[in-house]
Amino acid sequence: DFEKALEEVKPAFGASTETLESYRTHGIIPCGDAFDHLRQTLTSLVQQVRNSDKTPLLSVVLEGPVGSGKSALAASAAIESDFPFVKVITSETMVGFSEQSKASQITKVFEDAYKSPMSVIILDDIERLLEYVAIGPRFSNVILQALLVLVKRMPPPGHKVFIVGTTSMGDVMESMGLNEVFNVSLHVPSLRVDEMVKVLRHLDCFSVVDIPQAVDLLTTISAKVVPIKKLLLWTEMARQEVADGQKISLARWEQALRDLS
Amino acid sequence: DFEKALEEVKPAFGASTETLESYRTHGIIPCGDAFDHLRQTLTSLVQQVRNSDKTPLLSVVLEGPVGSGKSALAASAAIESDFPFVKVITSETMVGFSEQSKASQITKVFEDAYKSPMSVIILDDIERLLEYVAIGPRFSNVILQALLVLVKRMPPPGHKVFIVGTTSMGDVMESMGLNEVFNVSLHVPSLRVDEMVKVLRHLDCFSVVDIPQAVDLLTTISAKVVPIKKLLLWTEMARQEVADGQKISLARWEQALRDLS
Amino acid sequence: DFEKALEEVKPAFGASTETLESYRTHGIIPCGDAFDHLRQTLTSLVQQVRNSDKTPLLSVVLEGPVGSGKSALAASAAIESDFPFVKVITSETMVGFSEQSKASQITKVFEDAYKSPMSVIILDDIERLLEYVAIGPRFSNVILQALLVLVKRMPPPGHKVFIVGTTSMGDVMESMGLNEVFNVSLHVPSLRVDEMVKVLRHLDCFSVVDIPQAVDLLTTISAKVVPIKKLLLWTEMARQEVADGQKISLARWEQALRDLS
Amino acid sequence: DFEKALEEVKPAFGASTETLESYRTHGIIPCGDAFDHLRQTLTSLVQQVRNSDKTPLLSVVLEGPVGSGKSALAASAAIESDFPFVKVITSETMVGFSEQSKASQITKVFEDAYKSPMSVIILDDIERLLEYVAIGPRFSNVILQALLVLVKRMPPPGHKVFIVGTTSMGDVMESMGLNEVFNVSLHVPSLRVDEMVKVLRHLDCFSVVDIPQAVDLLTTISAKVVPIKKLLLWTEMARQEVADGQKISLARWEQALRDLS
Amino acid sequence: DFEKALEEVKPAFGASTETLESYRTHGIIPCGDAFDHLRQTLTSLVQQVRNSDKTPLLSVVLEGPVGSGKSALAASAAIESDFPFVKVITSETMVGFSEQSKASQITKVFEDAYKSPMSVIILDDIERLLEYVAIGPRFSNVILQALLVLVKRMPPPGHKVFIVGTTSMGDVMESMGLNEVFNVSLHVPSLRVDEMVKVLRHLDCFSVVDIPQAVDLLTTISAKVVPIKKLLLWTEMARQEVADGQKISLARWEQALRDLS
Amino acid sequence: DFEKALEEVKPAFGASTETLESYRTHGIIPCGDAFDHLRQTLTSLVQQVRNSDKTPLLSVVLEGPVGSGKSALAASAAIESDFPFVKVITSETMVGFSEQSKASQITKVFEDAYKSPMSVIILDDIERLLEYVAIGPRFSNVILQALLVLVKRMPPPGHKVFIVGTTSMGDVMESMGLNEVFNVSLHVPSLRVDEMVKVLRHLDCFSVVDIPQAVDLLTTISAKVVPIKKLLLWTEMARQEVADGQKISLARWEQALRDLS
Ligand SMILES: Nc1ncnc2c1ncn2[C@@H]1O[C@H](COP(=O)(O)OP(=O)(O)OP(=O)(O)O)[C@@H](O)[C@H]1O
Ligand SMILES: Nc1ncnc2c1ncn2[C@@H]1O[C@H](COP(=O)(O)OP(=O)(O)OP(=O)(O)O)[C@@H](O)[C@H]1O
Ligand SMILES: Nc1ncnc2c1ncn2[C@@H]1O[C@H](COP(=O)(O)OP(=O)(O)OP(=O)(O)O)[C@@H](O)[C@H]1O
Ligand SMILES: Nc1ncnc2c1ncn2[C@@H]1O[C@H](COP(=O)(O)OP(=O)(O)OP(=O)(O)O)[C@@H](O)[C@H]1O
Ligand SMILES: Nc1ncnc2c1ncn2[C@@H]1O[C@H](COP(=O)(O)OP(=O)(O)OP(=O)(O)O)[C@@H](O)[C@H]1O
Ligand SMILES: Nc1ncnc2c1ncn2[C@@H]1O[C@H](COP(=O)(O)OP(=O)(O)OP(=O)(O)O)[C@@H](O)[C@H]1O
Ligand SMILES: [Mg+2]
Ligand SMILES: [Mg+2]
Ligand SMILES: [Mg+2]
Ligand SMILES: [Mg+2]
Ligand SMILES: [Mg+2]
Ligand SMILES: [Mg+2]
Repeated sequence: DFEKALEEVKPAFGASTETLESYRTHGIIPCGDAFDHLRQTLTSLVQQVRNSDKTPLLSVVLEGPVGSGKSALAASAAIESDFPFVKVITSETMVGFSEQSKASQITKVFEDAYKSPMSVIILDDIERLLEYVAIGPRFSNVILQALLVLVKRMPPPGHKVFIVGTTSMGDVMESMGLNEVFNVSLHVPSLRVDEMVKVLRHLDCFSVVDIPQAVDLLTTISAKVVPIKKLLLWTEMARQEVADGQKISLARWEQALRDLS
Repeated sequence: DFEKALEEVKPAFGASTETLESYRTHGIIPCGDAFDHLRQTLTSLVQQVRNSDKTPLLSVVLEGPVGSGKSALAASAAIESDFPFVKVITSETMVGFSEQSKASQITKVFEDAYKSPMSVIILDDIERLLEYVAIGPRFSNVILQALLVLVKRMPPPGHKVFIVGTTSMGDVMESMGLNEVFNVSLHVPSLRVDEMVKVLRHLDCFSVVDIPQAVDLLTTISAKVVPIKKLLLWTEMARQEVADGQKISLARWEQALRDLS
Repeated sequence: DFEKALEEVKPAFGASTETLESYRTHGIIPCGDAFDHLRQTLTSLVQQVRNSDKTPLLSVVLEGPVGSGKSALAASAAIESDFPFVKVITSETMVGFSEQSKASQITKVFEDAYKSPMSVIILDDIERLLEYVAIGPRFSNVILQALLVLVKRMPPPGHKVFIVGTTSMGDVMESMGLNEVFNVSLHVPSLRVDEMVKVLRHLDCFSVVDIPQAVDLLTTISAKVVPIKKLLLWTEMARQEVADGQKISLARWEQALRDLS
Repeated sequence: DFEKALEEVKPAFGASTETLESYRTHGIIPCGDAFDHLRQTLTSLVQQVRNSDKTPLLSVVLEGPVGSGKSALAASAAIESDFPFVKVITSETMVGFSEQSKASQITKVFEDAYKSPMSVIILDDIERLLEYVAIGPRFSNVILQALLVLVKRMPPPGHKVFIVGTTSMGDVMESMGLNEVFNVSLHVPSLRVDEMVKVLRHLDCFSVVDIPQAVDLLTTISAKVVPIKKLLLWTEMARQEVADGQKISLARWEQALRDLS
Repeated sequence: DFEKALEEVKPAFGASTETLESYRTHGIIPCGDAFDHLRQTLTSLVQQVRNSDKTPLLSVVLEGPVGSGKSALAASAAIESDFPFVKVITSETMVGFSEQSKASQITKVFEDAYKSPMSVIILDDIERLLEYVAIGPRFSNVILQALLVLVKRMPPPGHKVFIVGTTSMGDVMESMGLNEVFNVSLHVPSLRVDEMVKVLRHLDCFSVVDIPQAVDLLTTISAKVVPIKKLLLWTEMARQEVADGQKISLARWEQALRDLS
Repeated sequence: DFEKALEEVKPAFGASTETLESYRTHGIIPCGDAFDHLRQTLTSLVQQVRNSDKTPLLSVVLEGPVGSGKSALAASAAIESDFPFVKVITSETMVGFSEQSKASQITKVFEDAYKSPMSVIILDDIERLLEYVAIGPRFSNVILQALLVLVKRMPPPGHKVFIVGTTSMGDVMESMGLNEVFNVSLHVPSLRVDEMVKVLRHLDCFSVVDIPQAVDLLTTISAKVVPIKKLLLWTEMARQEVADGQKISLARWEQALRDLS
């Protein structure tokens, strides 16, 4: 059944850069040192895969709250690697497929990658790939076991693979033994106050003088923890009904935050 | 299996307004500020989807007690959006179908929506779509995983989707991680005393002077919490055996409330 | 699979009165006010369905101990409604069928009912329809979900449906969310002492003077709680070995009660 | 599937008396009043089914420890009923069959019984029919639900059915709601000391003077609770190596009891 | 499905003595009274089956720690019975088969046995036949239910069956109700100190004077509880690197014990 | 199904030494006495299988933390045995296959081994073969039961089998009864401080004088417990950006450790 499923999946070499770009639709806004360091570490892991013959396989998992920028960081690293084979494994293209079929499609990507001299494989939103839900909990053990083996499996001699996983459920990964199969684990945090200021400046939608108070309103009215994706969405919402070229007033900002909380 | 199911489901563009109207058979009675504000927020989210290119996808979940008017509010927002594609996903049209088949029908609606420039998708009574039951608890993880992905999945460039979910089990949604995939969550409450007065006045079935005591009887004999749907049903029951053009007497009202409690 | 099952079930319009009569083989013995009031409430709900255009669908669940007369009351209401379509959904005609097949048969009855201008559907012994057992607990979620939707689903415009459910497990219904989908819930009690006296008088199998002591023996030797069905069975057992036309002596009654306890 | 299974099972009218006799291979040894009363109650229930038109269906469950004589009592009642259709439903003839197939075979017996004017159906060792095991616990809900309905289902007008169930797990029956569907429940006990004496006398394998001490050894060395089946087995074991026509000495008896405990 | 499986299994009359001999590859070393008594009890049960017409079926379960000699004892009893049909039911010949198929093969052996006038059936390692694992716990209820019935089922008139089960999980057997279906339960213990001495003398691999200290080292370095199989393995390991005809020195013995603990 | 699967698996005699070599890509670095003793014990067990006719089957399980060198040690023992049939059973070649298929492939390897006079079978990463995950826990009982039987099953007369298992979940093995079926269990530890020093010296990537402090940094910044695989990876990472022929400075080492922790 699985083998049949495997055959039916057509080989797909490489990924168009457009697809990857869709993971950073708002670009990569400079947020400060923490994010810079994350990007550097990813770059240097890519270099090690390219250069060291002793590590033909390296794997890293990006773990952090929903919307903190994990997928965007993974896509950036992949784009910048310039590796000939880059592929995102995401549940968005597998909605409604059976566990077996999903596992087979995932395996197929790895088999394809082994045919390229250098590959990047992104395992995006691993808990979704695993069909995880906290009630129970339930998840697909078929897919989990496939990942536990595939992330550790050496490519054939002369081939190199860099694997980047993303997840917002670090503890679940841990209890499933998934953390252990990744060589490196990096935390992608929510924004600190100074980082929010940096982002709002970059967006240029508030008067500069209003920014500190805008951040203050944000952290008092809404959750203390603000991941970048949420900040971008809320700013966009507040922008509504603001005339073109105008900034968001603090009053409008406060109203928007209250409406959505 | 799923793919086959997907093919067999015929495409269905748009929804007749009649179907949508059936979700507000008693119309939308003005109940006061809380409901007005809910309607405005929905309208302004629809506007954002229409206007902002940065948010081609917005999703909102209406959460509140059974019969509080969630489906009626969702249908109203959809009707008033004037979007060319409007579709209600409801378990009423999928009784007895398998999980796989339901997931496939749900996916089909999203695929159809992506073909329209602007779409509204209503996910009505999400706990029923999920075949949820508290004992266990049990639910369809196949459908849950489909929803977790579909509600977050971006439409293709140039297309816009507004998703409205309804549920009377906010806590269940939370524990399934469903709340997290909706951009906004709005609470639809039961009626407060002043709101009941407003509704009874509008219905014109009590003498105006009797209304305060009618509400009082309601909150003492029956449950303190009265959702609008229940108020409408009880009034209709009390109306029985009342001659045409006559008002409901307080005695008849009390009797009806006692019989049904 | 479900759809196929649906097709194979042949349409069945209406129910013969004989079948309904078999639910009240001992007739409806007048037991007192409580039962009279139950019957009246049922009658007036039937009237509302017939008369009010705003309530084309009404549903009521009769809940009470095993043998308290729920099925007999439901059958009586159905017979007296004179509605052209009356159907009992009972597990007796579905022994050994699969969950899917049962759900499909149940759905079929509702579809058939929608074709009649006015229908009564009896869902007899809902816990048995659900294949419920307390160990686990286990039950058919397929059938439960079908009921949760069907009991709430509006008939097509111009059609009217009255649904009567019976169950001896009110708490189970509650925890499954089934109570919430019925508009009205009525309790059918066991017999109180004065009601037992009424029934024994009606049966005319004791000397009138013996009846108080007969009831006394019953409530002391056997359980305090006596549903009507059990009272009828025990009387019949005691009648054995009593010559035709003779009354049951208190001694014989006591003996019978002791033997069976 | 179930229906197909139902068809494949060939009709089987009546049971040969030999089969029934095999349930009382050691005959029915007179043990005293308790057993006599049990047999009388069974006989009088059979009479009621035969005579009273108001009770065309009666059901009784015999509950008691392993080996207490339940199956033998049930078989005796069936043989003595002289009803034209007598059938034992036992897992011995269904080893390894699927749940569905077992449920279908059981249902078939009831359908066959309905064709005879008067029938006895023995449900032997109900926990085994249910494939019950305490770990879990696990059991076949398919078979349980079939029994819950079949034991209560009225035969067609003019037909009469007497059902006798046996079980050594009264509490399990209770928690499954099975006790409630039987009209009467009777306890079949282990042997009391005076009853053991009666049985040993009847067997005539000890010197009469040794019997009290033999019983004493039994209740001190082995378990206090001795069901009749076990007493018969142990006596037979002790008889080994005793010359023909000789009695079992107390020494030999003690040795046998010690070896097997 | 089961029935088909049953047909496909070819009948197999009797077992070659070689197969049985493989269960006692190290022979039966005289270990002392406890083991002698076990063997005698088994022999006398075999005699009873052969001689008494009232016990055409006897069943015994040998329970004790892993490696205590249960299978060897069972095989010995079977060989010495000289019954025409002897068969070992073991999971070794059923690796990877489905539950249904295993149950069908087991049933087949019993059906075959019923065709022989006198048969011995060994149910070796019952927990393995049941696919038991403590986590969960999990096991095959299909196979369990088959055993619960088969061990109690009488052979046809004139045929005799002796059943010997072995298990190292007495408590599991108990909780599954398996102990109750065997007529007799015998405990096969680990070796006591004096028994180890007897075995080591018999093996003749230590200087006689060294034996007490060898036993002492064994019980202090390794586990206190030493089943015979383990003693035989350890002796064999220590024998390595000992020249032919030489005895094992105490130093070598101590080293071997330490290496393996 | 299983049998069919069994047939489809083509026989595979022996394993190429290359495959085995891939399990020790970094060679076997001398780490000290503990590892030497492990290797000697394995060698002497191989010798016993080769020489002693009383132990045609010996099995050993290597248990220890992730990356401690279990697979490398097992592969070394296999290579050095010079047995004609050597086979590694690993989940890497069975990704996505069904339980049944995996069990059948595993069984096939044992059947093949029985055809060779002397064989080594490596069961690598047993928890992965079992598809084990701690949540639940879940695992394949089909594969577990196959292993429980296969590891104990004697090869046919004249054939010899040495089985080496590896696992990083000793406690799980225990609770599954797997430990009990292996004759010997050996612990493969993480590196002690002196062992780390030995390895770093051997790698020659630090100045000899820096080694003690490098080890110190390692045990303070990272985990106290360092398995050899992790030490090799970290050294390789630190080596990046160090010019050819240069040693790793302590500053670079500290930075690398901090980045990855
Ligand atoms: N410095 C940054 N790092 C990451 N993302 C950034 C940054 N600046 C802007 N973004 C934008 O923020 C968004 C981050 O969303 P992204 O989907 O990557 O988050 P995520 O953590 O993967 O979310 P989820 O948990 O929902 O998968 C992207 O649209 C990206 O373009
Ligand atoms: N202001 C109002 N808001 C919402 N519904 C209203 C209002 N006024 C009248 N209604 C009527 O009240 C009813 C609300 O029922 P609706 O089915 O929408 O509730 P619901 O919360 O979706 O119930 P459920 O939890 O059962 O799905 C509708 O018939 C609608 O026409
Ligand atoms: N006043 C009465 N109300 C109801 N039933 C009555 C009345 N008088 C006599 N009966 C008889 O009592 C019996 C009631 O049994 P019925 O099967 O309706 O009870 P039930 O509550 O449905 O039992 P169960 O819980 O087993 O389904 C019927 O035979 C009916 O004819
Ligand atoms: N008075 C008696 N009542 C019942 N059985 C008796 C009596 N006298 C002798 N016997 C014999 O005792 C045996 C009782 O065994 P039986 O199988 O009926 O017990 P059981 O309770 O059904 O056991 P189990 O719990 O194993 O099903 C029969 O062989 C029967 O012939
Ligand atoms: N007196 C004895 N009793 C039993 N076995 C003996 C005796 N003397 C020597 N042996 C040998 O000891 C071994 C006992 O192993 P056996 O397989 O019978 O144990 P077991 O209890 O069945 O083990 P397991 O629990 O693994 O199934 C056999 O090889 C047998 O030849
Ligand atoms: N003395 C040694 N013993 C074992 N392995 C060594 C030794 N010296 C160097 N190595 C190398 O260390 C690595 C050990 O990794 P190996 O895969 O064997 O560990 P493992 O315990 O099987 O890991 P896992 O738990 O992930 O299966 C191999 O690359 C091996 O070449
Ligand atoms: Mg993401
Ligand atoms: Mg609604
Ligand atoms: Mg009823
Ligand atoms: Mg019995
Ligand atoms: Mg054994
Ligand atoms: Mg390994």
